[in-house]
Amino acid sequence: MSEPTERSRIRKKPERARPDPAFRDAVLDEGLVCHLSWVERGAPCVLPMAYVRVGDELHLHGSREQRALVHMAAGGEVCACVTLVDALVLARSAKNHSLNYRCVVAWGRGREIDELAAKRASLAALVEHVVPGRGGGSRAPTEAELRATRVCAIRLDEWSCKQRDDGPRDYPQDLALAHWAGIVPLGIAVGEPRQEVGPAGELALPAHVRAWRRGRAPH
Amino acid sequence: MSEPTERSRIRKKPERARPDPAFRDAVLDEGLVCHLSWVERGAPCVLPMAYVRVGDELHLHGSREQRALVHMAAGGEVCACVTLVDALVLARSAKNHSLNYRCVVAWGRGREIDELAAKRASLAALVEHVVPGRGGGSRAPTEAELRATRVCAIRLDEWSCKQRDDGPRDYPQDLALAHWAGIVPLGIAVGEPRQEVGPAGELALPAHVRAWRRGRAPH
Repeated sequence: MSEPTERSRIRKKPERARPDPAFRDAVLDEGLVCHLSWVERGAPCVLPMAYVRVGDELHLHGSREQRALVHMAAGGEVCACVTLVDALVLARSAKNHSLNYRCVVAWGRGREIDELAAKRASLAALVEHVVPGRGGGSRAPTEAELRATRVCAIRLDEWSCKQRDDGPRDYPQDLALAHWAGIVPLGIAVGEPRQEVGPAGELALPAHVRAWRRGRAPH
Repeated sequence: MSEPTERSRIRKKPERARPDPAFRDAVLDEGLVCHLSWVERGAPCVLPMAYVRVGDELHLHGSREQRALVHMAAGGEVCACVTLVDALVLARSAKNHSLNYRCVVAWGRGREIDELAAKRASLAALVEHVVPGRGGGSRAPTEAELRATRVCAIRLDEWSCKQRDDGPRDYPQDLALAHWAGIVPLGIAVGEPRQEVGPAGELALPAHVRAWRRGRAPH
């Protein structure tokens, strides 16, 4: 990480800062959705969007009309946040309840990726990001599909990461209270996949879907 | 919901709009974290924050110095988004992969809640929002703790909700491809609670923690 800027410096609880690109990449690679914010007529806007990290860039995909992507394609500034909630933190006092989490916040000016080969690679990366192994299990995009998709990127130059990864932090005078305190780890639960059977008939569950089912246990 | 404004009107895929206050409240009541965005020196910022819905308001809690809350206390405008990811959607074509989700976006000007009884009720609501039943299982806040906490609110006057709740939407010419297509439902997995044993010794797992363990299965 380059030196933090005024806005990327963690001011509150600096012990939770994680100024490590490997930490940043791990969070970005584990998340499914980012929250992208931008300014429209002076007012803040934020929306959930699919994304993928490609090297030192964050790529966002959508239709050509999608407002945030139109803004990014014009070089507009955005701020993107990816958050993973890791645990409920139950303290003896109501005030000290918390969540364990990891999050990445990144600021940058948008840039549209126009070149077809780069768009193709970015879409392939997005599908692999959400379901590793899926690339080989679906039809690759046509040139017309790539043209109908807008792909924008920001460089990961200005960013900050935070993590809370701890038990409850009760005040000393509360420690003897007879209230259960501790953490409840959270992860992603996966239900039974539901196939949509087409003219090709029922197909066996592919390994990449089976693999996802094991992938996001609480830890 | 009052008539949508220019920014709260769902332009893209209007069939996904859910202009129903009951839908909005259900999403807000199920989420754990909102992404709050605001404008700082002309630039967008977004951070994850704990929140609770209290009637027709969204309440946010934090320390007195927290930047977004300082902005809200001064009447600044924010946009908050709560997103629940419900399923992976695997299509036969890479292009038509998607996620099922529900999300709420709300815009408003911040207002600080100063009055101690209202802050007390808001903190109690926040704890109950995250872990229903926990209020009785922890020490209530003191006046000093309430004074050290900043509570801000926006009214839910201008908002929009969206939901994708569907199988893959493949093009007709792709339906016969021999690629597995369907959805993989997602929820929140809960691991084994880890007690932090204090001077009061080991305590039985309370019913409100046991209840959370069953609460967020994929559907």
